[in-house]
Amino acid sequence: MKRILLLGAGRSSASLIKYLVQKLNPNNWELVVGDYDLNLVRHKLPSHPRLKGIQFDIFDEQQKEKEISGADIVISMLPAAFHIHVAQGCLKFEKNLITASYVTDDFKELEKEVSQKGLLFLMECGLDPGIDHMSAMKVIDNIRSRGYRLVNFETFTGGLIAPESEGSNPWKYKFTWNPRNVVMAGNGTVKFIQEGRFKYIPYHRLFRRTEIVEIPGYGLFEGYANRDSLKYLDVYGLKGIRTLYRGTFRRTGYCRSWDVFVQLGATDDSYNMEGVGKMTHRQFINSFLSYNPNDSVELKLAHYLNLDLEGEEMFRLKWLGMCDDGPVGLEEGTPAQVLEHILKKRWTIQPGDKDMIVMWHKFDFMDGDKMRKIHSYMVVKGENAEDTAMAKTVGLPLGIAAELILNNKITTKGVKIPISEEIYDPILRVLESEGIKVVEHEINT
Amino acid sequence: MKRILLLGAGRSSASLIKYLVQKLNPNNWELVVGDYDLNLVRHKLPSHPRLKGIQFDIFDEQQKEKEISGADIVISMLPAAFHIHVAQGCLKFEKNLITASYVTDDFKELEKEVSQKGLLFLMECGLDPGIDHMSAMKVIDNIRSRGYRLVNFETFTGGLIAPESEGSNPWKYKFTWNPRNVVMAGNGTVKFIQEGRFKYIPYHRLFRRTEIVEIPGYGLFEGYANRDSLKYLDVYGLKGIRTLYRGTFRRTGYCRSWDVFVQLGATDDSYNMEGVGKMTHRQFINSFLSYNPNDSVELKLAHYLNLDLEGEEMFRLKWLGMCDDGPVGLEEGTPAQVLEHILKKRWTIQPGDKDMIVMWHKFDFMDGDKMRKIHSYMVVKGENAEDTAMAKTVGLPLGIAAELILNNKITTKGVKIPISEEIYDPILRVLESEGIKVVEHEINT
Repeated sequence: MKRILLLGAGRSSASLIKYLVQKLNPNNWELVVGDYDLNLVRHKLPSHPRLKGIQFDIFDEQQKEKEISGADIVISMLPAAFHIHVAQGCLKFEKNLITASYVTDDFKELEKEVSQKGLLFLMECGLDPGIDHMSAMKVIDNIRSRGYRLVNFETFTGGLIAPESEGSNPWKYKFTWNPRNVVMAGNGTVKFIQEGRFKYIPYHRLFRRTEIVEIPGYGLFEGYANRDSLKYLDVYGLKGIRTLYRGTFRRTGYCRSWDVFVQLGATDDSYNMEGVGKMTHRQFINSFLSYNPNDSVELKLAHYLNLDLEGEEMFRLKWLGMCDDGPVGLEEGTPAQVLEHILKKRWTIQPGDKDMIVMWHKFDFMDGDKMRKIHSYMVVKGENAEDTAMAKTVGLPLGIAAELILNNKITTKGVKIPISEEIYDPILRVLESEGIKVVEHEINT
Repeated sequence: MKRILLLGAGRSSASLIKYLVQKLNPNNWELVVGDYDLNLVRHKLPSHPRLKGIQFDIFDEQQKEKEISGADIVISMLPAAFHIHVAQGCLKFEKNLITASYVTDDFKELEKEVSQKGLLFLMECGLDPGIDHMSAMKVIDNIRSRGYRLVNFETFTGGLIAPESEGSNPWKYKFTWNPRNVVMAGNGTVKFIQEGRFKYIPYHRLFRRTEIVEIPGYGLFEGYANRDSLKYLDVYGLKGIRTLYRGTFRRTGYCRSWDVFVQLGATDDSYNMEGVGKMTHRQFINSFLSYNPNDSVELKLAHYLNLDLEGEEMFRLKWLGMCDDGPVGLEEGTPAQVLEHILKKRWTIQPGDKDMIVMWHKFDFMDGDKMRKIHSYMVVKGENAEDTAMAKTVGLPLGIAAELILNNKITTKGVKIPISEEIYDPILRVLESEGIKVVEHEINT
């Protein structure tokens, strides 16, 4: 009887656990789920004779060694920084490992030892990174195998809310993942390649340089660039490509309105503001505006950033209550922390809300002298605030990968990400049978 | 015979050395000038029987101890980070120390030992910081001694070029001090107090939130805020003040044009650009703009930043040759380094150029219920590119302070800056006799 050890039982593991539980009896496997939160493993896990929940502390060396040595494969859903501790145990006891996190330099250094021991550490096997790699490489490999040359590649992913849950929310957005990451998104300089030239966008211009994309049946989205497009040059073997652009989707209008916070400096996380304990929403906004006792905060803001007083951006800010006299409700914080706290008052996902994951790739390739285009996209909706599309799309690829590895369907060794056909092809097939389908279609121009 | 040890003999020390040399015979002093650059101390020092130049390496412990132990007072013009090494020697051999650099945390920690040993480490005794402290505290002390209450204080300093050296330079600016500091100026978030409220300006808005000031006889200047206004709350004892604003002067129009570089991201120092070795000025600018093969860099730039194609900002950029096809001339660099390199081609001060230092303070104070205003300002011009106003205004206060300390006219102990009357009053008097005069006048409203 093989044993799967899953570390981390938080909300993002729910779909993964549900998937694995179905596989236990048919395969004669058992599943051990470890989490630091005793309540989680005692009361929140499904009941199944082959499933055991344990309290688990990654820094308890003895426990770590006991559990890893007793497992046949380890899936780590712990915070990314802890994966390396898991990896050390997996190396010692020669166990395969799967995570949904980026390959860090720490992991790159393990490559030789992992390969020598005949192990597979499969990383970046969730949604983004994860399904994005798999669905993109499937098309890229196909283009190459037919002798065509890929010249432009753009890819966007967004975690949004489903249209039926948008209600009158003018942002058409709520937090469906780590709110802090949303507030800090884009901080730093964005680099990408456009028509063979390196291009740079500073943070304070990022949300004005968006691109609009239509997805059949789902309407319009706008994308802003991610920081890290260039690193995919090597990863996907795209040296010499003319355009490489990786971005994040929001609903149209979001970025211009978000840019108000960026322009004000309200997403700055580098200093603590004075007097947060007694600060109102309105005072928070006013602290970024000039002093003028005769003008309203609204007028000063509109004038400063050249907004229409009755325009969309001001409407979205008012809907958030940004100019209200209510207290922020924090004792201290950076601008980014204060902003996050205010946003959570309106942007927290409610029990009945459905989230929605949208992914879109665009490929331009040369068929002789003719440029041809393929678009591919995936849209996944959640059931409610517990069974989210985010948890499903992050968790299922991990579960499917574990199943394939335990059944010897994936035999590659080393520290890998899911960009080879041996890995992505079976995972994408099973995802499709689970209702997660990537649609590809050639665009006729 | 007392001995002064001056460490650092670069261009900024020229006026200081000239001043001290005059004082050697009358006071029966000798001066030892140490610099790492042997050529400098052999060939560039004035010839005087009481002056000796030596090659000096701050990291040669033996030499450091020998020279410091043989001196009666030490003036350090070394790079700011090296002062602490000098200070350790001064503590060991119980010598007074003078610098023109900010009191760092390192130095704050020495306060107790310096006081206990009956020493004076006089810091921030140059121009800015230095003369700004002295001239401001003179007025502030005067206001307080008459029983009035200071409510607003604004102060600006700028290192510019004299009107007679402006020629057709539309920026009315050249580098007269460390170019890198000019390119990086304002990076980070600015904090100040305006009418009792804390205000924050992010870097990408800083050069649009300027203030215009007229100085009698010298025309208009525009000021942008410095990062560190708030730290003067404690230093000057201004707790409870309504407005506290510290800034930098440029000639009018400079800031809006400089803002073009900020908006583009051309002052970013956080990453190395690709392909700098083959980059032209034009390509440098274009790397921050969208790709569009049918539009010129000029039109894309004007459209992106909402500039008039024939307006002042575009004219200033063209004057710098920013859109020329000439090579940058660097092998690698961050955007800030590339920009600095291009700017130096037009902004390097020429032998006959005169620089100009402009300092201006504004004080509002309550005389009972009535608000009264004092302005004070100082304008100093250089002689040429060697004898600069910058070197004079940084060096003379240091030299005068050394003279006063050696003659026991300043007796305070500890790690100090020149904000007490015992220090600022005699220094300002001697500065005036040297032609560096701070003009104060009450404004009738």
